[in-house]
Formats: sequence, C-alpha cells, structure tokens
Amino acid sequence: MENPPQFSGFVEVRGAREHNLKDLSLRVPRDALVVFTGVSGSGKSSLAFGTLYAEAQRRYLESVSPYARRLFHQVGAPDVDAIEGLPPAVALQQQRGAPTARSSVGSVTTLSNLVRMLYSRAGTYPPGQGIVYAEGFSPNTPEGACPNCHGQGRVYEVTEGSMVPDASLTIRGRAVAAWPLAWGGQNQRDILVSLGINVDVPWRELPPETREWILFSDEQPVVPVYPGLSPEETRRAVKRQLEPSYMGTFSSARRHVMHTFASTESAAMRRRVQTYMIAAECPVCHGKRLRPEALAVTFAGHDITEFSRLPLKQVSALLRPYAAGQEDAQLAQDQPAQAIARQRLTEDLVARLAVLLDLGLGYLQLERSTPTLSPGELQRLRLATQLYSNLFGVVYVLDEPSAGLHPADTEALLTALSGLKAAGNSLFVVEHDLDVVRRADWLVDVGPGAGEQGGEILYSGPPEGLRNIQNSKTAEYLFRAASQEARQPRTPSGWLELNGVTRHNLNDLSVRFPLGVLTCVTGVSGSGKSTLVSQVLAETLAAHLGQGSVEQASGSQDEEDLGDSQLPTTSAHLGGDFTSLSRLVQVNQKPIGRTPRSNMATYTGLFDHVRKLFAATPLARQRGYGAGRFSFNVKGGRCEHCQGEGWVMVELLFLPSVYAPCPVCHGTRYNAETLEVQERGRTIAEVLGMTVDTAWDFFKDDPAVFRSLDTLREVGLGYLRLGQPATELSGGEAQRIKLATELQRAGRGQTLYILDEPTTGLHPADVERLARQLERLVEAGHTVITVEHDMQLVVGSDWVIDVGPGAGDEGGRVVAQGTPQEVAGTPGSRTAPYLALALGEVGFVDRLKG
Amino acid sequence: MENPPQFSGFVEVRGAREHNLKDLSLRVPRDALVVFTGVSGSGKSSLAFGTLYAEAQRRYLESVSPYARRLFHQVGAPDVDAIEGLPPAVALQQQRGAPTARSSVGSVTTLSNLVRMLYSRAGTYPPGQGIVYAEGFSPNTPEGACPNCHGQGRVYEVTEGSMVPDASLTIRGRAVAAWPLAWGGQNQRDILVSLGINVDVPWRELPPETREWILFSDEQPVVPVYPGLSPEETRRAVKRQLEPSYMGTFSSARRHVMHTFASTESAAMRRRVQTYMIAAECPVCHGKRLRPEALAVTFAGHDITEFSRLPLKQVSALLRPYAAGQEDAQLAQDQPAQAIARQRLTEDLVARLAVLLDLGLGYLQLERSTPTLSPGELQRLRLATQLYSNLFGVVYVLDEPSAGLHPADTEALLTALSGLKAAGNSLFVVEHDLDVVRRADWLVDVGPGAGEQGGEILYSGPPEGLRNIQNSKTAEYLFRAASQEARQPRTPSGWLELNGVTRHNLNDLSVRFPLGVLTCVTGVSGSGKSTLVSQVLAETLAAHLGQGSVEQASGSQDEEDLGDSQLPTTSAHLGGDFTSLSRLVQVNQKPIGRTPRSNMATYTGLFDHVRKLFAATPLARQRGYGAGRFSFNVKGGRCEHCQGEGWVMVELLFLPSVYAPCPVCHGTRYNAETLEVQERGRTIAEVLGMTVDTAWDFFKDDPAVFRSLDTLREVGLGYLRLGQPATELSGGEAQRIKLATELQRAGRGQTLYILDEPTTGLHPADVERLARQLERLVEAGHTVITVEHDMQLVVGSDWVIDVGPGAGDEGGRVVAQGTPQEVAGTPGSRTAPYLALALGEVGFVDRLKG
Ligand SMILES: Nc1ncnc2c1ncn2[C@@H]1O[C@H](COP(=O)(O)OP(=O)(O)O)[C@@H](O)[C@H]1O
Ligand SMILES: Nc1ncnc2c1ncn2[C@@H]1O[C@H](COP(=O)(O)OP(=O)(O)O)[C@@H](O)[C@H]1O
Ligand SMILES: Nc1ncnc2c1ncn2[C@@H]1O[C@H](COP(=O)(O)OP(=O)(O)O)[C@@H](O)[C@H]1O
Ligand SMILES: Nc1ncnc2c1ncn2[C@@H]1O[C@H](COP(=O)(O)OP(=O)(O)O)[C@@H](O)[C@H]1O
Ligand SMILES: [Zn+2]
Ligand SMILES: [Zn+2]
Ligand SMILES: [Zn+2]
Ligand SMILES: [Zn+2]
Repeated sequence: MENPPQFSGFVEVRGAREHNLKDLSLRVPRDALVVFTGVSGSGKSSLAFGTLYAEAQRRYLESVSPYARRLFHQVGAPDVDAIEGLPPAVALQQQRGAPTARSSVGSVTTLSNLVRMLYSRAGTYPPGQGIVYAEGFSPNTPEGACPNCHGQGRVYEVTEGSMVPDASLTIRGRAVAAWPLAWGGQNQRDILVSLGINVDVPWRELPPETREWILFSDEQPVVPVYPGLSPEETRRAVKRQLEPSYMGTFSSARRHVMHTFASTESAAMRRRVQTYMIAAECPVCHGKRLRPEALAVTFAGHDITEFSRLPLKQVSALLRPYAAGQEDAQLAQDQPAQAIARQRLTEDLVARLAVLLDLGLGYLQLERSTPTLSPGELQRLRLATQLYSNLFGVVYVLDEPSAGLHPADTEALLTALSGLKAAGNSLFVVEHDLDVVRRADWLVDVGPGAGEQGGEILYSGPPEGLRNIQNSKTAEYLFRAASQEARQPRTPSGWLELNGVTRHNLNDLSVRFPLGVLTCVTGVSGSGKSTLVSQVLAETLAAHLGQGSVEQASGSQDEEDLGDSQLPTTSAHLGGDFTSLSRLVQVNQKPIGRTPRSNMATYTGLFDHVRKLFAATPLARQRGYGAGRFSFNVKGGRCEHCQGEGWVMVELLFLPSVYAPCPVCHGTRYNAETLEVQERGRTIAEVLGMTVDTAWDFFKDDPAVFRSLDTLREVGLGYLRLGQPATELSGGEAQRIKLATELQRAGRGQTLYILDEPTTGLHPADVERLARQLERLVEAGHTVITVEHDMQLVVGSDWVIDVGPGAGDEGGRVVAQGTPQEVAGTPGSRTAPYLALALGEVGFVDRLKG
Repeated sequence: MENPPQFSGFVEVRGAREHNLKDLSLRVPRDALVVFTGVSGSGKSSLAFGTLYAEAQRRYLESVSPYARRLFHQVGAPDVDAIEGLPPAVALQQQRGAPTARSSVGSVTTLSNLVRMLYSRAGTYPPGQGIVYAEGFSPNTPEGACPNCHGQGRVYEVTEGSMVPDASLTIRGRAVAAWPLAWGGQNQRDILVSLGINVDVPWRELPPETREWILFSDEQPVVPVYPGLSPEETRRAVKRQLEPSYMGTFSSARRHVMHTFASTESAAMRRRVQTYMIAAECPVCHGKRLRPEALAVTFAGHDITEFSRLPLKQVSALLRPYAAGQEDAQLAQDQPAQAIARQRLTEDLVARLAVLLDLGLGYLQLERSTPTLSPGELQRLRLATQLYSNLFGVVYVLDEPSAGLHPADTEALLTALSGLKAAGNSLFVVEHDLDVVRRADWLVDVGPGAGEQGGEILYSGPPEGLRNIQNSKTAEYLFRAASQEARQPRTPSGWLELNGVTRHNLNDLSVRFPLGVLTCVTGVSGSGKSTLVSQVLAETLAAHLGQGSVEQASGSQDEEDLGDSQLPTTSAHLGGDFTSLSRLVQVNQKPIGRTPRSNMATYTGLFDHVRKLFAATPLARQRGYGAGRFSFNVKGGRCEHCQGEGWVMVELLFLPSVYAPCPVCHGTRYNAETLEVQERGRTIAEVLGMTVDTAWDFFKDDPAVFRSLDTLREVGLGYLRLGQPATELSGGEAQRIKLATELQRAGRGQTLYILDEPTTGLHPADVERLARQLERLVEAGHTVITVEHDMQLVVGSDWVIDVGPGAGDEGGRVVAQGTPQEVAGTPGSRTAPYLALALGEVGFVDRLKG
C-alpha cells in the first residue's frame, strides 16, 4: 500500500500478541490523531498502551539508563515481533487506582510555581518588609511553612472527651480509651494502682486533679509494678518495699497519643491514636498554612492562599488586565523591573489558564487536591499542562480524554489535541465518543468481540473507510442514522425529595427524584451533578437508612487521611416517599481491589464455592485439606514466596510500579502440594486461569458457582479470567462486575442505585448492554439514578434532571427536568440541543453534524 | 534565513546562558549529523550536553513522571529562554568518572542475553540432562551461580602467613596483624594473657598447637580480663578469682577476618581485613562461576564461560556458519525447533557483532569488564548497541566518539552514525577529529576562546561556510594546507629497553624507547599500545624505581575491588640505560578527584598558600582562626549542612546523580563567621570563585600563589575558576592541570612521563599547545612517551613506535619504528598512510581527502 500523501510517516507494528491480541500487524501514521476503537475488552488498550506505549517507554528508558535496562529485563518487554518508526511516548492515562502522589491542581499544572514567583517578584509588600522568595510561598518548604502548624493549617489537640469517650467506665474497664491496647494499657493501669489511684470507680467519680494528671501530665514517674496483685495487696507490697516484677514508667494519655502520632512507623497505630485527636484550625495562620510574612504579601488584594482558592476562571479574569499591561502605569514608572516581571508572569499565567478554561476546567481552584478530582478531570489537567511542555516528536497516548466531558465541551478537547499535533507530536487515543472518533485522521478498530473473541484489527485507515467493514460494531454506531427512537417513559412509583441542599456550588437547592424509574442527571462538567447525586443524596439517604456510610458496591471503604479532610459541610433533608426505600448502593468504577490479591472470583464470592469443591475431593480429604487450603490469601496452601500474589512488585521510580511473575510458583500463587489436588483434572490455579465462558461450561453442574458465572456472562464479561487481578481490570469492567453482583442478589426490598458516569470506557455497543441491565433493575422495582454525559443512555431514560447552566458558580441549579423529550425542548439548557440531536429532532442534526 | 531544502526541520534555541554561554540563539537541523566544534573550554559541551541534552531529558522525564518533576524543580533547568522543536534525547557520553555499574561487554551490549538463550535453547546437553533456562547461564542469578563460590569464581582463605606476616614479632608486638587495631586488638591480647599464653615471646616460638588455636579456633571462651595487670599479676588474679574489669570473649583471627568481611558495613574495614585473605580459584567451577549443569552445556565445543572469553571477532567467525544454516543438516531434521532457534539466534548475534567489528572492537571479549575499557571503547560499545535499539525520532548526543580510534577506523564510525541517522534520529556530536568534522551535515563552531573568552557562536551552518569565518580556530585547521612540515628529530640521550613483555596480546615482545625525546606509540585500537606503555612499561619501571605503584599524577590511587582483579600476569625486564631515570609519572585524563570536594586549587596546592594569607588577616588573628579554618574539608570553618561541599547530592534513578546547591550556604561552602574574614575585600569563597586569570591579577604580589597560577595560565586554563569542582572538569582539563603541576616542579632528576591519548577532548589548537608543553618537558631533559592517534602530535614527535598490525591476536608486534618520516614509509603499517598524509606526502592526500 502506498503511504497516503498527507502523512509524514508511519509506525509499523508486526506480530503484536500482548494479552488477547492475535499476532497483529498494522501501521498507523505519525504526526496525526489516531483513534483506537472497539468494544470493552476488545484489546484497544492492550494495543495502544500495552504494546505501543510500553515498547516506546522501554526503548527510550533502556537507552537512557542501564538501571532501567535491568528492570525491564526482569519485567519483560511487550510481546511483539517488531515495531519500527516508533518515537518515545508519553501516556496521559486515567489512573485506575487512586493517584498516589499528594498534589493539587496548582502543582499538577505547575501553575503554582508561577503564582509563587508572581507574589515574590510582583506582590504588594507591607512597607519595610524584605522580599519573600518563591519557595517562601509554599507551605511545603521550611521557608514557607507556618511555624506553628508546620504548614498543615491545622493543629491537633486531645481533650478529656476525646480520650475518655465513656466516663461511666472504670480505669480497669478501659475508661482511658486512648491508652494502648493489650499489655501497654494494663501496664499503665498497674502503674496507677502502684500510685494508689482507684482504678475500680467510674472515671467521672475520680477527683478532677487526678483525672487531669492521668490524662495530661508531662511527668513520667517510674514506679514498682506488681501485676499479679490486687490494689490492696499492691499497697502493702509498696509499703514493705517488696521486690517488684519490674519498674514501670507512667505516660499520660496525651503523651502517649502525641508521641505515637509523631513517631510511629505503623500506619495502623497512627490511625488508631488519630481517632483520639481533635483537629482545629491553626490559630497562627488560620488554616492558610503559610508564615505571616508570606501571608502579608498580596496581589490584587488577595493573599496567596485566598488567591489559590479562587476558581481558575476568576483568576484568569483578575490577571488579564495586568497581562495586557493596563494596570498601574505608576508602578511601571517607579519600579520598571517589578512591572516587567508582573506583566510577563501574568501573561504567561493567562495563556496557560486559557487552555484550562477551554477544556471546561475553569471551575477548579489551584488549591483543589487531585484525589478529589474525577479521573477525567485529572487527565484533562495533565493534557492542558502538556500543551506547555514543549515536547516535540513524541507520541502522546491517551485514554478516553472525553471521559466526564459534556458534549458541549468536546470541541475544546479536540482543539487541545490539535495543539499537541501542531507542535510536532503524534496522538494515539483510545476513545468511544463518536464525536471524537469522527475527527480522527486515522482509525484503528479492534474487535470484533471482547477477550478471546477480540484482538483482531477490523480496520486501520482514515475514518470514512470503516463504513464498509461488516463485523465492526463501531461502524454500526458511527454511520447509522443519527437518531434513536424516543421510548415511552415509565411512570414513577413515587418521588424522593431532597431539600435545602448546600455544598460546593449548590446553595439551598431542592430537587425531586422519581422512584422506580431510570433517571439521568446531566450538565456540563463542574455544574454540580456529582455533588448533588454521588455526595449529598447518597450521604443523606445513607444517614437516614442507618448505613453508617454509603454501601459502596466496591466493599472497601476509602481511607481518609487526617490532613486531607476539610470535611465538607452539608445541610440537606429528605422528603417525599423516601421511606419506601430500604437500601442504597453506589455502583462506581472504582477498582474492586487495589492489589493483585483481589480478583473477580473473590469479589463475587464464587471462589468460596470453588474452594469447597476442591476441599471435597478425595485427595484433599485424605490429606486433611480444608477449603482454606485453597485460598491464596492465607498461609497453608499458598506460595509463601509471593504470599499468594503470584507476582512480586518491582519499583520503577519513573513509572508506576509493576508486577513481575513470582519466580517460585511462576504465577500460580500456590505451593506444589496444593497443586497436586485436582477437581476433574484441573488444579485450583488452572480454574483461576479459566475465562468466565470456559468456567461456565466446566461448572455447569455446580449451581452455586454456575449462577454467578451466568450473570457475569450476561453483563458481557465472559472473556475475563476468574483470577484476573483487580489491578488489571478497567473501571468499566470493575463496574460491570459490581453490577453483576447486584443483579444476582434476590430482591431485598426497594433499592436506590446510584451510578456516576457509568458509560466511561464503554463502546456504544457496551452502553446498549448497560442500558438493558439498568432496565432489569428498574423492572425489578428498584430506582436507578445516574450522572451521565452519554446521550445514548440519556435518551433511553425515563426522567432527566439537567443541572447548570454552567460550571461552578455559574451552575448548581436545576435548569430543566422532565422526560428526555421535555428536557430536549427546554431553552437555556446546554444539554437540550444534544438530547434533541440524539432524539433526531431536525435542525440540530444539520447544525451539529457538519 | 530560509531553511536549506535538505533539512526536514530545525531545533531553535533562544537565549542559552548555561555556564559561559553568552545568551546564544541558534538553530540546528534535525535528522542530520550536527557537529559542535571549538577549543577546549569554549562551551561546546555546555551547549550540546548542558543545554540541549539536559533540556530534552528534563522535558521528557517531567512529562512522564511527577517524581521527575519534583527532582528537576530542585536541581534546576538549564538556563535558556526557549528551545523549540527539540525531541527527547539520549546521551552517549564519555564518563568523566569511572562507570559505576559493574558490567561487562556482554551485558552493556545485551549480547550476553542472546548467548544465554542460545546455550539454553540450542546448546549441546549431556545425554539425559534437563534443560537449563537462560538465567541458569548467568553467575549473577541463584539459578546459575556456582554453589561453592556463589558465582564469584574464587574462594577466600586465610593462612598463618597471611595473618601473621612477621613471625618474629611477639603477640604484644602485634604479631597477629589480622586482629583489629586499637582497643579490639588489646582486648584479644589481654584475653590471651588471662588464658595463660605467653604474649612476650616471638610468635614463631609459641607451640604450634597454640598458634593454630589462636589463629583458627572456632571456640569463643569468655574469660575475666584484667587490662592493667602484667601477665604475672594476671595469673595471680585469675587464681584468686579477683573481680575482673570485665569479661572478654575470645575470637580467633580467622573468625574475626571472616566475620568482619561478611558482615561489616564499613568499606574501609572490609578492605582492611581483605588484605589478610588469599583468593584462590574455586575448586568446583574452576573460576568459571557457574553451576556444573550449566558448564556441561556446550556450543561448538565451548562451554559458555570459554565462549565469553573468545574475542568477538572469533565469536562472529564461529557463529557465521550456523547463522547461514550451513551446519548440521541432521539436527534440522531431527529437532527442527532447536535448529530454528539456533539459526535465528546466531543470525541475530552475527548481525549485532558485525557492528562491533566494524567499529574496531573485535578484539574485546564478552567477559571483559567495563571498568577496564577506555572511555572511548565504552562509548563505541554503547553506540553499537544503539544501532539495535530501534529508537526513532530522538536526538543522540555524543561526546567525541572518535576518542581512542585510529584514523583507519574513522570510516566505520561515520557509517555507524549514518545508521542512526537513517533510522530517523538526529545526531549532535561534540568532536575534534577533522575527518569527522568534515563529514558533518551542519557545523556549530563555538568560541573564539575558552571560558569568558568563549561562549559565542562563531558559525552555524553547512561545513563549507566556515571557511570564511575570521576568528574561528576550527576554520584555521579545517581548511589549511593539509600537511605539516617535518621537524628535525632530536637525538636520544640513551635507550631504555623492555624485553620479554608478555601480557594480553603481547607475547615475549622486546621494545626500545629513546630517552630524552618525545616518543609516540601508535597503532589501531586494541593493538596493545596501552598494555605496553601504560601498563607493562609503567609497572616494570615503577617496580625498579621502588615506587610501590606508579605515581599517578592524579594523586589518588584507584581502589581495586577484590572480586575484580584477575591480576594480569606479566613478565618483562628492563635493559639499556634505565638507570639514568629517577622518576616515573603518568599524566592521564582521569579526574583529579571524584567529588566536588577536590578542585584545582586543592589539587595544585595553591589553596594552602591562599588559606595562610587569610589566616594572617587581622580579623582572623583576632578570632584565632588558623589556616585550617579556611578549609572546606574539615570541621570549623566549613558549612556543616553540606560538610563543605557547597552542594548536596540528589539521586536520580534513571540519570547520573546530580548535585544541587546547598540550601544553607548557597554553595559558598563556608559558614557565615568564616565569610566575615576578608583578604583585600574578598572572602575565601569569593577567591574560590575567581578564574585563574582574575586570581593571577589579584595575587600578583604573593609569589607562592602567583607561580602556580602563572603555570595554569600557560597550559591554557586561565578561564577555569579556582574552586571549580573536580567533577566539572573535562578529562582534558584534568590532564592539563596535572601537566601544569608537573611543569611547576623544579628538576628532580630525569623523569619519564607517560601519557595515554593526551589529545582526547582537545581541539587542534589545543593539541598544538599541548605539544609545546611536552617539548618543554623534553627540553628540561625528561623523556615523554605518549600513546596517540592524533597525527598532528605524531608528526611533531622525535620517534614513533607503531604497534600492530591489527588488534588483539592480530596485533601485539612492533610493525615499524623510527622517526616520523621513516615510519611513514614503512609498508604494512596501518599508521604509515595517515602519517604520510600528515607529512604532506603526495598521493595519499588525493586518495584520502575525497
Ligand atoms: N494486565 C493484563 N494481563 C492479562 N490480561 C489482560 C491484562 N489487561 C487486560 N487484559 C485482557 O486483555 C483483553 C483486552 O483488554 P483491553 O486491552 O484492556 O481491552 P480494551 O482496552 O479494548 O477494553 C481482555 O481480555 C482483558 O481482560
Ligand atoms: N472535593 C471538592 N472540594 C472542593 N470543591 C469541589 C469538590 N468537589 C467538587 N467541587 C466543586 O463543586 C462544583 C461542582 O462540582 P461537581 O459536583 O464535581 O460537578 P460535576 O459532577 O457536574 O462535574 C465545582 O465548582 C467543583 O469545583
Ligand atoms: N558544571 C559546570 N559548572 C560551572 N561551569 C562549568 C561547568 N562545566 C563547565 N563549565 C565551564 O563552562 C565553560 C565551557 O566549558 P565546556 O562547555 O565544558 O567547554 P568545551 O566542551 O567546549 O570544552 C568553561 O569555562 C568551563 O569551565
Ligand atoms: N584488562 C584487560 N583484560 C583483558 N584483556 C585486555 C585488558 N586490557 C587489554 N586487553 C586486551 O589486550 C589487547 C590490547 O589492548 P590494549 O592494550 O588496550 O590496546 P590499545 O591500547 O592499542 O587500544 C586487546 O586484545 C585487549 O582486548
Ligand atoms: Zn499555621
Ligand atoms: Zn509465588
Ligand atoms: Zn565456583
Ligand atoms: Zn552548605
């Protein structure tokens, strides 16, 4: 084939076999926007990330450093025969786990550095104050940190109430909860006995000075301890100076808590003592984390902390006059150097902010911490930052950059991508959004199905050529008539009301959600959808239902670090028919576990049944192996070298850590004896290696296992292996596993399901399947509320609530609500035109398709 | 300016100010061979490495990893306003320090991996033996290592002779030298006294069983110790069971040595005890480091260790028939899988070896350890490896790739560079070799002088355009008449003979070196020049002169690690007028120190004088500051945060570690009080910041300081700062500092100076200056012998010894010797044609200039 003339050159791949890829050969142009499409599990990521990106990284880093070479030798290269013409690559990937590094919008974008320079060089100083260097404006440097709270913004205290939660208990009954558990606590009690303090009366009956001393003293008397003896006997022993068992050192409860907090290396210990501490705003910096000298410097009337709490849109508006050199001609005359610095820095800032605003992120603040951002927001932040990184000749590999983006903002995304291309780079993008797919210079369609049924190249070429590809699901959606027929909406069984909602940009908002139907909450990114649904609605209802926290279908509760939680203030109350709901479940895309130790089989519970089958085999019974023997999570049957992980972690400083197969069990996770036991010719490790489809066949006659497998197949996960580690599953796969787990439960009263952007990572064909599953839930009498951007799903819903009209301060209201058709006709809603388009309303189709 | 049509695009640099660069702006083409020229110290490296490479690395790594971003934030970016169109870069730099990672030719080139696969999959196994996996052929894996010596190839023993070097000493007189020094040794002596052993007779008079027990016992009796008492008093005290000072534990000398060796964390301790250990070949693997199973597998009759000791040229010849599929048709029929593996692997190996042979490295062996290679050999190895790395679209930045290369091999180097270019990469090369310079697609000439006098772009464009640039030293040499006039050679004052030289590829060779003149030893890379001159001649003469080791003008003796030293066997004896020589000095390009703690001022000794001047100032005297106060190497005056380094080291896993300025003293190295002392208005830190030129002016009236500075100026180092850390000096600068130090010494008898490739890193203009300095040494009655490739220097010498004709086994003989003119006329010498060319012999000029 001749190179189409518009491309400068090609990357040629031969024999790609990573994961499910079937010995693929293909070529994709450089200096172009190449989009990889295909249903979930078809192998797009295995090709774009697992093969092209991984190989580009490996080659470059190996050339740069012998250290990298050794690591890659251990970890292994992607399974591919040859790749030619492949430049170094940069991945802007959506993190499947949580981002590990503590960072903020300001640090990720490097805007904070510029702002600190701006304050240092062009801020307004109080008369007579010396210059504060840029680092002096960072709470993370010794120069900048508030000396009282060390830059934390808060101080931690203990009180009698926090350390003695139940004053009716005696000391022997563990009134002083803050003291260590086990021996350490007994020791303190015995010391108090030796000191003649009554440990057998309720705490509140002790004299105040005694309580004060026990809790807060800095003294550390060393006293003889007689652990076996009663208080009476101890008194006598002390008097007679009998030989004690040992000499014990007293430590007040505060001393113990503070000392442990400051010096323990055990995260669990630290967490334990934290529960006895109360955080309060630092009285010196008032939570602003900086030294007084730094906070005394202002720009446009704001100190730097206030500045970093403004929405970026406002920051940009505030800086624009300075960038244009319109402000304060006097300064330019008096202090030309300062004026020049100010003009240059603000100009640079304004230019960089413009990209962020274009990408629909103007509602964020510099201070916002990245763990509170959605993966899509974070990826767009990094994308915007790259536009200023000045890289040339690299391949950017992106993972669904449209995730979380309202259709209205897609154009800005495409502009950003074009910017990177114009700067001399190639773009390899895994994407489902048809608006993006349509704008590709080159399409690679992977399929036709998922897993074993996928892994082939259906098409590789300019988009138009896909039209004639028979078995491509992508072609089906990309070129089919644009509209979907409006469905007759269901009638709600009742209404749930949420009144007086106040959090983030929501201010005393009241909203009604229909029960027994499927509702989509729409609106531009930052309009307040997640705050309303995933936060306030979920928390308020959970509190009402007495679910201490929302039941995450994920099982694991996220730990909150103390320093983090500026706990959001909420006020909201329920109304309407909320009493008819008996359960609340959030089905999100968070991983079903964060280590290779969890997998689909353990998560869904089907592995319990499988293990029992193995324990019932003759050999297992003869050897006395119980079901526990077949767990890789406890000692006994597992390989002890990798402790049943099957993998060992290899630290790569400049890359996410990777896992290499365990050299002892070669990834089977079990020790040799355990693998001698077989169920109908298969070892437990082999069962974990089966796909759902294979296992479905194998376990036909074991109803307990079979039922789980059957549901997993129904949600389209037949291609997954039972033991596939949680860390290898995409967000969409994780979400569908959770859905399957839910679908499998028999009706436990009326449940409200909350889903936040469930279509992320899903091909239109997968979205159709998801819609069917949600309908099954509704048909079973449950309520489903989703936050959603994908019009394909919205069109098929029963009710739409459009939040907006804009983001941040410009959003937070209900702009439209009703059936999809009603909302499509509401003027002022930014969602309406797209909904209308999807519904096939004429006019819009012509305007938007172009 | 229009882009010349042949270039696809340009890298644009604006405002480069790194080191001495004077706010440069320039552009250089991508996908081309760009050569940076200029005299030493002009700023070529600051531009190519310090700016272009550093910035490319920073951008890419920052994009790849937030961790890298934090590091670069600390370390700082290159000082440049903007660079556009700059792809990611890979440096093939000559290491200024020693390579840190332990590696071999096989591992650096990754050929070892292939060879292990070849042995595993296509080796000849003894009947019945199971397969050995590739790792099983590496002594560095548990699977492969010989279990007896843990893959070391040698075992360590102690003997009476090694631990008691002088048997005439008493125990009190430290006969057992292997015991610890100081208190630990006294303790053992006191224990022996308590045990009733006579510590006051010569060791050899003790009964053999006693000696055996003291040295080798595994017993550890605990006995009362009476340190103050005499043996007689001790005896009585023991008898009476008097209260001892303490209870002491005996440890035999072997126990102490072995235990310390195995468990100490102090490198110094380990080195100390190593001196009492004797290495012997491992009796199990006979030094081959592998398990018997691995050694039982052969290929073409060699086990893998033997294989890795063959010269690469021979390896290639041996594999070629297999690669061509010509060997053993029977196998192809019987075991087609093995035959295919063998053919593929040997084919790949032969192709990769070809590049190494082309680059003149066929004489190396896979096993050869990289620290024994010259920097030029190592760089060419890495270059050859890159030809197989498949990188596309990167910039390779190289540092004088012709270093160590005979002119006959330059063509192969240019072919290798073209290969990288043809694969789609850009080449930025710092180079002095005019043959390479001539072949550039684009030249950047930096100058006109060094340091402050340099840092400007004299020319940037296609080579021909440099012809008309007035102040370019490069133009002067590149376009001047090709020949140099033959000088009348000096008459030797005598002859030094070296007979029966046997080492490496030299076998019973006899050579005569003229005394009192300048001799150049020439020959292709690997012919044996360094072995002859820098090793055998140097060592033999040093032994004769009683210089325990050769006086490295560098002062620091290289540490040899025990595991390393396959001590070369040498036999050679001196003859002729060797008695007239009274001193031997090697002036090499090794760094004058390996940390920023050493610098020119400390190395040359002039800093001692400067410190005395500061100690003599009134304030210093008033405060009682001695000269030591002004040292940054000892406590007192230095900054304790960085311990006087001025820098703190930052570890970068994928890059060489870097140094960032000390945050406390801001790089001044001194504490505030010390900096209050001034000598004529300058602090000690400011003096260290002066260039030699400035200091020369400042210290005009201090003869001791002035003399040093004057010589440094003479060797062309006027642009260096006094305190410039050793780690920032190029090899050429280090060598000239050493030369200056030598030139400064008054005649101390006749000295033999040995220089190994002194022109490396030198511009032709610098070579001319070097030649003058060497002549000064000769004129002072000394003898100079250099190993050299640069015909400019060879032509000007008095005598030439050409070693060869080829490399490795094909070299090792004296092919020609005589005056330059005589050697130029010797047929069979590969050097002759180039020498003739340089001497302006017609015919050659036409043939080679083309
Ligand atoms: N790390 C992995 N190890 C093994 N199999 C994997 C891994 N990651 C993905 N897979 C499998 O490879 C196939 C393709 O997955 P993927 O490339 O993620 O598809 P897509 O990006 O199209 O959703 C699926 O069967 C998936 O389960
Ligand atoms: N954890 C948080 N901390 C501070 N502000 C937040 C947080 N989460 C959301 N916000 C703010 O609340 C507003 C609504 O955000 P969000 O609910 O995430 O919108 P949506 O879900 O529609 O994208 C935005 O201005 C956003 O910046
Ligand atoms: N790391 C460094 N820090 C400060 N100055 C340096 C450093 N490295 C080199 N220099 C100085 O910069 C100037 C140019 O040096 P360099 O770029 O190495 O020249 P060249 O490569 O042309 O020999 C010299 O004055 C040199 O001493
Ligand atoms: N440390 C060493 N160990 C083993 N072989 C060596 C070592 N140094 C040199 N040789 C071998 O000796 C021969 C001559 O090498 P060398 O003296 O370095 O040549 P030249 O200096 O002419 O480049 C080559 O075959 C080389 O491989
Ligand atoms: Zn504070
Ligand atoms: Zn294991
Ligand atoms: Zn051995
Ligand atoms: Zn310091």
